[in-house]
Amino acid sequence: MIDARHKAALGEILGDSGIVANAADMAVYENGARYDQGRAAFVLRPRDTVQASACVAYCVREGIALVPQSGNTGLVSGSTPDGDGSQAVLSLDRMTQGFELDIDNRSLRLDAGFRLSDVNARLEQEGLFFPIDLGADPRVGGMLATNTGGSRFLRYGDVRRNVLGVKVVLADEQGTVLDLMSGLRKNNTGVDWKQLFIGTSGAFGIVTECVLNLEPLPRQVSTAYLVPRNGSDVMPLLRAMEERLGAYLSAFEGMSKNAVSAALSHVPSLKNPFQGGNIPHYVILAEISRSWTPRDGEQPLDAVLETVLADLWQDGALADAFVGPAHEMWALRHALSEGVKHLGRLIAFDLSFRRGDIMAFCDHMKAEMPARFPGVTICDFGHIGDGGVHFNLVVDKSASLDKDFEYRLRDWVFAVAVEKFHGSFSAEHGIGRKNQSYYDRYTQQKNKDLAVGLKRLTSPGRLGAVRFG
Amino acid sequence: MIDARHKAALGEILGDSGIVANAADMAVYENGARYDQGRAAFVLRPRDTVQASACVAYCVREGIALVPQSGNTGLVSGSTPDGDGSQAVLSLDRMTQGFELDIDNRSLRLDAGFRLSDVNARLEQEGLFFPIDLGADPRVGGMLATNTGGSRFLRYGDVRRNVLGVKVVLADEQGTVLDLMSGLRKNNTGVDWKQLFIGTSGAFGIVTECVLNLEPLPRQVSTAYLVPRNGSDVMPLLRAMEERLGAYLSAFEGMSKNAVSAALSHVPSLKNPFQGGNIPHYVILAEISRSWTPRDGEQPLDAVLETVLADLWQDGALADAFVGPAHEMWALRHALSEGVKHLGRLIAFDLSFRRGDIMAFCDHMKAEMPARFPGVTICDFGHIGDGGVHFNLVVDKSASLDKDFEYRLRDWVFAVAVEKFHGSFSAEHGIGRKNQSYYDRYTQQKNKDLAVGLKRLTSPGRLGAVRFG
Repeated sequence: MIDARHKAALGEILGDSGIVANAADMAVYENGARYDQGRAAFVLRPRDTVQASACVAYCVREGIALVPQSGNTGLVSGSTPDGDGSQAVLSLDRMTQGFELDIDNRSLRLDAGFRLSDVNARLEQEGLFFPIDLGADPRVGGMLATNTGGSRFLRYGDVRRNVLGVKVVLADEQGTVLDLMSGLRKNNTGVDWKQLFIGTSGAFGIVTECVLNLEPLPRQVSTAYLVPRNGSDVMPLLRAMEERLGAYLSAFEGMSKNAVSAALSHVPSLKNPFQGGNIPHYVILAEISRSWTPRDGEQPLDAVLETVLADLWQDGALADAFVGPAHEMWALRHALSEGVKHLGRLIAFDLSFRRGDIMAFCDHMKAEMPARFPGVTICDFGHIGDGGVHFNLVVDKSASLDKDFEYRLRDWVFAVAVEKFHGSFSAEHGIGRKNQSYYDRYTQQKNKDLAVGLKRLTSPGRLGAVRFG
Repeated sequence: MIDARHKAALGEILGDSGIVANAADMAVYENGARYDQGRAAFVLRPRDTVQASACVAYCVREGIALVPQSGNTGLVSGSTPDGDGSQAVLSLDRMTQGFELDIDNRSLRLDAGFRLSDVNARLEQEGLFFPIDLGADPRVGGMLATNTGGSRFLRYGDVRRNVLGVKVVLADEQGTVLDLMSGLRKNNTGVDWKQLFIGTSGAFGIVTECVLNLEPLPRQVSTAYLVPRNGSDVMPLLRAMEERLGAYLSAFEGMSKNAVSAALSHVPSLKNPFQGGNIPHYVILAEISRSWTPRDGEQPLDAVLETVLADLWQDGALADAFVGPAHEMWALRHALSEGVKHLGRLIAFDLSFRRGDIMAFCDHMKAEMPARFPGVTICDFGHIGDGGVHFNLVVDKSASLDKDFEYRLRDWVFAVAVEKFHGSFSAEHGIGRKNQSYYDRYTQQKNKDLAVGLKRLTSPGRLGAVRFG
């Protein structure tokens, strides 16, 4: 319920259409993409940085807590209000005016409310794209706040690597706008402040505009499935492909038998590509790509991949390997998440490790799980090339589910991942309310103290779903 | 002159060989690579992070100002003490013990005192390298503090992109050690604190250990000189090469006629590669490379480059282009700096721009220079692919040199670069004492305030050659 005084003051800034305060229209801003349901006091929809700044200044002065929301596709409750109904949402969904391509600089200056799919659709005719490949279709501001990674991280890096500038509204009484929009690729004239607003869930400021690095669009793509003889062959295969394919290599995704099996059973459009229909213990989807159309005298890309696979075959690390149509091979990879959901209750983890520890972690968990949590099946897959694992657990209906079951399971998985294997409890999804307690538990005290200080320094007002202090 | 009490206390930490306090031995730590001469109170040479932390804690408690020094190869007086003799130097030159290669993670964990050349010599047999290509041979800690770029930025990025972890000693009374050494490639669990210590000259903390990303070593290299018809053809050529060569493209360096001419005149080992010996108005050195040895059925790399040049020739942007031996082509590029120095008094600038503005900036300066600063010749060259320009000015002996001449010239160049063309006054060399006044002039007040706050938060003690507040 919006206070009449707030409504009048914010209406002055945004116009009536810029405030949403009735229950029916707020629902879409209150509920997360997959998990959470919150309650908003009201929703603000600025059209530009000036309006956003004025809204933030007002809310800070009035003590109103704000949760910035972009595409609201995140998975950690980082962009929705909590359940108590006192937080307001500041949505970027109307910030879709500015869109300036700088073709020479290979960069794009734009408002933070554009969806990734819209950005790339507009860029296609220029032969360029923003090279973050995700299952979801977020808005750009949220991609920065989350520092999303995705399936082509190995080739293009994360959002952090591809941001050349940001404009940020700080949560202070002035709604200070920090203009860091240089768009320069090389600039060492002090602190690179934009880094603080990338991957920190909007708690230190709201990114309202940005400059993105663009990459030449792939014009040729070739994919293969690789079946390693053993788990211990996965890393040597990755190293060999990196050496023999360099930056051609644009994806190296791992898929466990359980995950593949779930997808093939539950997604009818898929066909089983494996010999005799026998799903291997572990499968790697490798992709190579290049940004030009085929040229005279040049070996076709499939032949390049086949030559390299033949070399790897000689090394004895492969049980099987075959090149196939990219859309079919990716279709299976993209269906894993959907397939796994059909098996039972899903408890999902977004972990990362130094690359050499991924298989060891998974082996360790497979060995320990039956005794500790009978009835829980591991259906892991992920971005092996960058150390990321979507470690998905499916709880059988037979499992005994006391009310603390999920907490105990989560605590144990995180303890092994973080304490034993020195991994991350959130590789690419961020913190949000969902991972707040693990931030509190696993962050060194000094780092927490620094975050508290940084919060005071940048955005002392109540901003964001994550509590840094 | 070191106080006996300090000598005793610091000797307890470092042993006698860890303190340098006599004039003769201090000289090498007091003088910069090219420009400056300072005076140190004494020099501390810790062997590891624990010693460094103890030294820093002592100095902070005693109010002793510390300047961290790594390879001391920088060009902005960022690693040497000032002239008053009260600052102590903390050198990383004995921090060369830890060196742990993680072959699966393609990363290296090491002490910050290693020289770049030593790192790459040790890695060569593994087919890996740290891909920052510089004229100098710095130690690693200084490379992080400077965020060095270099000639292969276009392909591999800067130091920031290639750092996976740091250990930092903060200048507080405890000499707090911040351990950010995860080595993870994907990790979004809060502020990415390591970003604050990269490119900030050691003012917020001293990097004593780090984890570096490594890349597969190039096994094939091919280079060409491209002569654009006009300055306005340079960017279309770059764009076309990026599209048609993707990540093969590992360098795209611009060389002005004046710079090439100086090198060819003054470096006897070079031969003039141009038709009829006529040096073109502007030359681009393009390099492509790949990490594997030649394979059956694969087009040789020179042929790839020739095919692309033939395509570009069709577009009409080229006046000339030819493939040649990489070592000869690079020899000319590397001789530019030396050649230019022979022409007269050199006043050097390390600027950067959005890429499309580079040629416009140079044209503007060429048009304006004769009237404003007669007798000054522009000998620019640089890393066009990432927007960097080594904008070198040579002052003829005939120029009238009042004592403010260099200040006026610098002020004007920076004003045009920063105010008119929205470029950077330090692309890859950092701030140091040399650029302090330009930091003070061109940094937005809010950013300065944030830096002051960040300094208090991290390293309230007197640390570093740069004053952030």
